[in-house]
Amino acid sequence: MENGTLNHGVDTGSTITIKGILSLLMQNIDEQTSKKRVISLGMGDPSAYSCFHTTHVAQEAVVDALQSDKFNGYAPTVGLPQTRRAIAEYLSRDLPYKLSSDDVFITSGCTQAIDVSLAMLAHPGANILLPRPGFPIYELCAGFRHLEVRYVDLLPDKGWEVDLDAVDVLADQNTVALVVINPGNPCGNVYSFEHLKKIAETAKKNKILIIADEVYGHLAFGKNPFVPMGVFGSEVPVLTLGSLSKRWIVPGWRLGWFVTSDPSGMYREPKIVERIKKYFDILGGPATFIQAAVPRILEQTDEAFFKKTINLLEHASDILCDTIKEIPCITCPLKPEGSMAVMVKLNISLLEDISDDIDFCFKLAKEESVVILPGTAVGLKNWLRITFAVDSSFLEEGLRRTKSFCQSHAKQLLRY
Amino acid sequence: MENGTLNHGVDTGSTITIKGILSLLMQNIDEQTSKKRVISLGMGDPSAYSCFHTTHVAQEAVVDALQSDKFNGYAPTVGLPQTRRAIAEYLSRDLPYKLSSDDVFITSGCTQAIDVSLAMLAHPGANILLPRPGFPIYELCAGFRHLEVRYVDLLPDKGWEVDLDAVDVLADQNTVALVVINPGNPCGNVYSFEHLKKIAETAKKNKILIIADEVYGHLAFGKNPFVPMGVFGSEVPVLTLGSLSKRWIVPGWRLGWFVTSDPSGMYREPKIVERIKKYFDILGGPATFIQAAVPRILEQTDEAFFKKTINLLEHASDILCDTIKEIPCITCPLKPEGSMAVMVKLNISLLEDISDDIDFCFKLAKEESVVILPGTAVGLKNWLRITFAVDSSFLEEGLRRTKSFCQSHAKQLLRY
Repeated sequence: MENGTLNHGVDTGSTITIKGILSLLMQNIDEQTSKKRVISLGMGDPSAYSCFHTTHVAQEAVVDALQSDKFNGYAPTVGLPQTRRAIAEYLSRDLPYKLSSDDVFITSGCTQAIDVSLAMLAHPGANILLPRPGFPIYELCAGFRHLEVRYVDLLPDKGWEVDLDAVDVLADQNTVALVVINPGNPCGNVYSFEHLKKIAETAKKNKILIIADEVYGHLAFGKNPFVPMGVFGSEVPVLTLGSLSKRWIVPGWRLGWFVTSDPSGMYREPKIVERIKKYFDILGGPATFIQAAVPRILEQTDEAFFKKTINLLEHASDILCDTIKEIPCITCPLKPEGSMAVMVKLNISLLEDISDDIDFCFKLAKEESVVILPGTAVGLKNWLRITFAVDSSFLEEGLRRTKSFCQSHAKQLLRY
Repeated sequence: MENGTLNHGVDTGSTITIKGILSLLMQNIDEQTSKKRVISLGMGDPSAYSCFHTTHVAQEAVVDALQSDKFNGYAPTVGLPQTRRAIAEYLSRDLPYKLSSDDVFITSGCTQAIDVSLAMLAHPGANILLPRPGFPIYELCAGFRHLEVRYVDLLPDKGWEVDLDAVDVLADQNTVALVVINPGNPCGNVYSFEHLKKIAETAKKNKILIIADEVYGHLAFGKNPFVPMGVFGSEVPVLTLGSLSKRWIVPGWRLGWFVTSDPSGMYREPKIVERIKKYFDILGGPATFIQAAVPRILEQTDEAFFKKTINLLEHASDILCDTIKEIPCITCPLKPEGSMAVMVKLNISLLEDISDDIDFCFKLAKEESVVILPGTAVGLKNWLRITFAVDSSFLEEGLRRTKSFCQSHAKQLLRY
């Protein structure tokens, strides 16, 4: 079999994207012959399922802001003052210090916040430490912004903790930052206070910043509560990235933030602030009326809405882990404790005509109309990233079909 | 007088921004002592004036898309298919060929479309030809994306036409594009078919692309109708940038487009398309539900709404030119024929204690609470950019105060 066939057209180079692979997988489903409904366990966007509907508070706040006729015009490129203030207050609830409005910059979703961070830190020769497995937008941004990427493994046997010894080895005087995604995408882990403290100490020792991707902030349902990295902002400057996307289940609203969680004030130097502001002048940013709705959304969203989401995610993760236990060729090193996805390991040697994770996912899509992301897309070959933030009946059916797919492809002697 | 005082804190370097200067001017107004209401003739955003209210069609389309609950999730990063298709059809109405959905990429306002163009064209050693006077976001983007800037003068005595001889002199093998803003910001000109054709021929001869900034597309009320540059797309590849911002008077909605008006197909090469798509993966982009409203907005907006805006702008430009004629130190080389702004020339020698355009604007703001953009911000020292897209009573009062300011600062012998 030729390499091209094996790869199913997937470019496994450094600029692979999740949406790119998922779209190839979708195209691979032959809807003419398949009578099964398509089930995607591929993307962290449950907004299509009615059980994951956003709160009416959020929707009404946006409609009211639009209909007020006050927000059709330009906002300051760094964001509306009231929006910056509301996000500063929202994030400060979980910090030992108060963020100010000036620490908050409004972005078009967390994606744009990632780009801002990397573009701001890039300089000739600079490198950045990214987690592996991770989120491919970081690699893509690093490529466009001319930052060298170095990978720090997350350790599956230690609850996907960051390999801090590797940070010590990899960091040099040109290293600008370590990216920490917590709650974890793609692994579904939530770091303990102690591990976050060690990360901060390691970053401080190596004189690098931390980019804390907390787009899944507060979506924690395991033993560890969600602790924002900014708690250690006095130890080491932290750039906190987040958005309404996941906690409010409105990824399409494109409302995110880039926040300097930095009580020691490195990011209050006028030259740095000026450079950040100028970068925001070229960004576009989110709609003014959506920004205007944020203060009300943050203030008035009921705790019950958040609790319901957490319960749904926890229930889904139970279903996922219970079914995975019944599939010999797939193992799960850590039951999800947060976020919307988990990494599970594929034992290719138990399958007879599947060459790797990409081959697995393409054949699964073709035969069972189930879309799962190959681990290669997030840096781990022969693993799978399964998103469990879907309606539970879909999840059950998707996993049942995956199990049946594994059974029919199991090596003869091992067929169960 | 020291330079610092003269500059009023304005950084006149290459990365000056309109919003930055306007915000300094606003800060310079002493609202405690000033009893006058602040009048800004500084920014191309008339959305705050009730006469420039957007059409209800647009607002309802957005509310309906939001309330349909179908568009809370991610859109493809290049944009929703139906939005791309609708914009392709909308732009094709004025072209001798049909654009396809694949030619259209949805951006967060025209600002992001500018960044996409420059980022896509940048390579080590590359340079770009920008109009002077122009729109400073181009310089800012060029700086961040490592493109050298070369200026092509617009000729005030020839209706602000592009100095095409200069293009021949400035363009070399590293020149990637010529930027053409039509209808013109900041000059208020609208190019004739013949001049656009000459621009296309000059670009073709020099083997460079054209970036056609048509954010003010269709806002023409003079002798020349608006002709999109894409009409000459078979001659030379054109990247058309636009948005809902100006024609629909919703700049805060951040809905723009980057379009390859390129019937000869250079931009359909898979590698180029792939690179553009990957760049869109890191951008964030506009809200999905606003995108979803675009087909209805483009289809159902009444011609009467457009006509009303044109009439308002034309009337405002009459008021502007009539009043300017009464101010000896200010002259207008071309009555506005389109867009929302015009460049007028300041004769500093007629004023006794004003050192330059920046000094003029800061003192005008302080003494009369009127904000006008100094020409330096758009590349022409001792000129002014006046935005006339404001309520006519505001415009009249702003100009009356400007006239009185000029009178009180006129040289003694000349005082009128």
